[in-house]
Amino acid sequence: MIDTLAYARQNQERFLEELREFLRIPSISTQPEREADIQAAAVWLRDRFLAAGFTRADVMPTGGHPVVYAEWMAAGPNAPTVLVYGHYDVQPPDPLDEWDSPPFEPTVKGDSLVARGASDDKGQLYIHVKAAEAFRHTAGAPPVNLKCLIEGEEESGSPSFAPFVRAHRDLLAADVALISDTHILAEHLPSIVYALRGLAYLEVTVTGPSYDLHSGIYGGAVNNPINELCRMISRLQAPDGHVLIPGFYDCVRDLSPEERQDSAKIPFDREAWLEEAGAATDWGEPDYTIVERASARPTLDVNGIWGGYIEPGAKTVLPSQAHAKISMRLVPDQDHKEISRLVADYLQSIAPPSVSVKIKVLHGGEGAIVDRESAAMRAAFKAYSETFGVDPVFVREGGSIPVVAMFQRELGIEAVLMGFGLPDDRLHSPNEKLHIPNFHRGIETVIRFLAAFGELG
Amino acid sequence: MIDTLAYARQNQERFLEELREFLRIPSISTQPEREADIQAAAVWLRDRFLAAGFTRADVMPTGGHPVVYAEWMAAGPNAPTVLVYGHYDVQPPDPLDEWDSPPFEPTVKGDSLVARGASDDKGQLYIHVKAAEAFRHTAGAPPVNLKCLIEGEEESGSPSFAPFVRAHRDLLAADVALISDTHILAEHLPSIVYALRGLAYLEVTVTGPSYDLHSGIYGGAVNNPINELCRMISRLQAPDGHVLIPGFYDCVRDLSPEERQDSAKIPFDREAWLEEAGAATDWGEPDYTIVERASARPTLDVNGIWGGYIEPGAKTVLPSQAHAKISMRLVPDQDHKEISRLVADYLQSIAPPSVSVKIKVLHGGEGAIVDRESAAMRAAFKAYSETFGVDPVFVREGGSIPVVAMFQRELGIEAVLMGFGLPDDRLHSPNEKLHIPNFHRGIETVIRFLAAFGELG
Repeated sequence: MIDTLAYARQNQERFLEELREFLRIPSISTQPEREADIQAAAVWLRDRFLAAGFTRADVMPTGGHPVVYAEWMAAGPNAPTVLVYGHYDVQPPDPLDEWDSPPFEPTVKGDSLVARGASDDKGQLYIHVKAAEAFRHTAGAPPVNLKCLIEGEEESGSPSFAPFVRAHRDLLAADVALISDTHILAEHLPSIVYALRGLAYLEVTVTGPSYDLHSGIYGGAVNNPINELCRMISRLQAPDGHVLIPGFYDCVRDLSPEERQDSAKIPFDREAWLEEAGAATDWGEPDYTIVERASARPTLDVNGIWGGYIEPGAKTVLPSQAHAKISMRLVPDQDHKEISRLVADYLQSIAPPSVSVKIKVLHGGEGAIVDRESAAMRAAFKAYSETFGVDPVFVREGGSIPVVAMFQRELGIEAVLMGFGLPDDRLHSPNEKLHIPNFHRGIETVIRFLAAFGELG
Repeated sequence: MIDTLAYARQNQERFLEELREFLRIPSISTQPEREADIQAAAVWLRDRFLAAGFTRADVMPTGGHPVVYAEWMAAGPNAPTVLVYGHYDVQPPDPLDEWDSPPFEPTVKGDSLVARGASDDKGQLYIHVKAAEAFRHTAGAPPVNLKCLIEGEEESGSPSFAPFVRAHRDLLAADVALISDTHILAEHLPSIVYALRGLAYLEVTVTGPSYDLHSGIYGGAVNNPINELCRMISRLQAPDGHVLIPGFYDCVRDLSPEERQDSAKIPFDREAWLEEAGAATDWGEPDYTIVERASARPTLDVNGIWGGYIEPGAKTVLPSQAHAKISMRLVPDQDHKEISRLVADYLQSIAPPSVSVKIKVLHGGEGAIVDRESAAMRAAFKAYSETFGVDPVFVREGGSIPVVAMFQRELGIEAVLMGFGLPDDRLHSPNEKLHIPNFHRGIETVIRFLAAFGELG
């Protein structure tokens, strides 16, 4: 493996040049007029897989944009198999005039490579292609079996991806998924995301009178659906953030003392965090730290509310309807379907006879948690630690990465989130960049991970 | 007075023809292109006052559309003075294609005269001109001193009217105001509105973080201004309608046992009322009847609410702001400024440090209540009773008529609301109509009122 790392170091300049070529293709998945660029990016990537030594690489059709699938199964049937996930499509570059250099003309500025897709996700996925190539030239082949599945619709909601995975379960069978599409805490502080929150998202409509009434004529004798919706929402959550829906916490897996100790190790600057959030003060369950509340605890947020007269000035309407979009971030082992049912039942149970309530489930996804003691997680810990010279910290993330839950559901495998981005990479924004030293450290980390997982897995 | 009534009966056809002439003038106050029609209506009306025998009639300028002022002070300094209020402007007729006949071509259909302004308010105000004329031809002059003040901006919020009244307090000095701009309960059930509700109307903005956040990243650790606004609103009112703002009921004048007895006499069909309101069931303070809740009790309604993501689909935003328009119907002797202050103070006091609250008073108006034993009220009771052959019932109205409170404030006089419309007159809607028999009964009622008030007042 020392040779392999040396090879990677010797070829840093060429690797970066290749990535710049990749970044010049404006493979924007949400714009139909970029269809040819999507195809070009997929073909370019397939050719790179083949050039790196992969024994198979195909552009495979889906219901939408194609996926690129590559494999290299030289480690043999007794060696573990790693399924690498990434995406070759990128966000639109708008607003164009806020870019300091053209978004599809990758520009080196100090330690940064500035281009749309540099960090999200072309730069991160290309790390895996180059790590494999390094093994080829030094060891003949990677020490584990590799399957790479790179989609072209991640930035447009992956409508065709889950159906593709479901239709190719045998092809994609693996022991673990490896995903490089997240960031580490800081340049010299690697981190491993081991848990994600799920989501239950509902839309609630409260109907009072069947049409808008004059509040002078009916006010006081006909229930107002906005007043009632507010009362109902106020009964979903205590002022301190604790959710009041019966049964909501029944399946919540408590943070272990060890997890809480690790969480406390994450460097956290409350003042900087408040500044970033634009908040006067933090808020939430008093028995948990800010980091825990924002990542490891279930929540309830009204994401939108509307009803009645919302133009300038005063109109004395007693409206017919009021609406709210309400979502809950969920943690293992809450089931999003069960939680949606609990909320709907509770809302119906507290609605008085003077209104009717309709609830529509808009979206749902499971949380995910990975066993930190698994072979893959230990290999990832070792690889980060040796490459960065400092142990990575384990973190939970407050949002969702749908592909993690989807792989768990469809392929029965857990995912290691091995990110190499930085928090200030400006994903989806003008002047997106990749920290170049992290690109090279990423290749070394993946080389070390594959070697370690080959021994442990 | 018998002669006077006979004169009015003999001239019914001509009176109606004259009203049709008035209704042909499209004096729409909200449309600048109707300026000439506004002027024409004012001049037409002034000429009719003079023709009826008024000793003075002027089109007087204001900051906006002119008022028509007329007076006939022949009853002498010892007789009481009545100030008649009405408005010669009308609502726009849109949507035009829903009219069965042209809105400014008054059309007789059975007992109805169909035209924009027929009931609101040209038909009702013209009653007073014709009652005076009937006295001229039979008694030489009305038995009380008459001042008539007819404005041209009622349908556009009367921006110039209060300043005009304030600037002409001496000219307008009177013992009582007489307003015909409301309706009676049914054709054969006259009614006298003796109380109106006031209004305090606020807009509340709750600000959490200084910009929209991702609910996955910050949810649970940053307070959500929509959740908080709902919590705050839920603390303004109990589920049964009772308002929870400290001090809110301190100045409420309770309904007297007699008032409650009278209120119970108002024919009320709960099923028909629910049907009309489109409500599944009534709601509100359990110790009061539906009629009392909707007219004699103070209320709190959220008239509009908005915040966060309100387009179709799911967006997991933790928004920066949430807004609500909140109004309270007030009863005597609640002061709208004091109530606005109480609400604002209470909202500020219950807001946690994680949000900031801004409150803007959008509108306010006092409620009004008239002594039912005053000379003018007794005269009105007698006049309705003799004309309709049935005693009028005393009712409170849930809405506001700003001019009533304004006369009370600026001129120190109470108002008798002597309406002749019917509940189905379709004010502000297509096919507005006046019930023709009520136009003639109105003239007789006013003749009887002036005679009785001359004796009692």
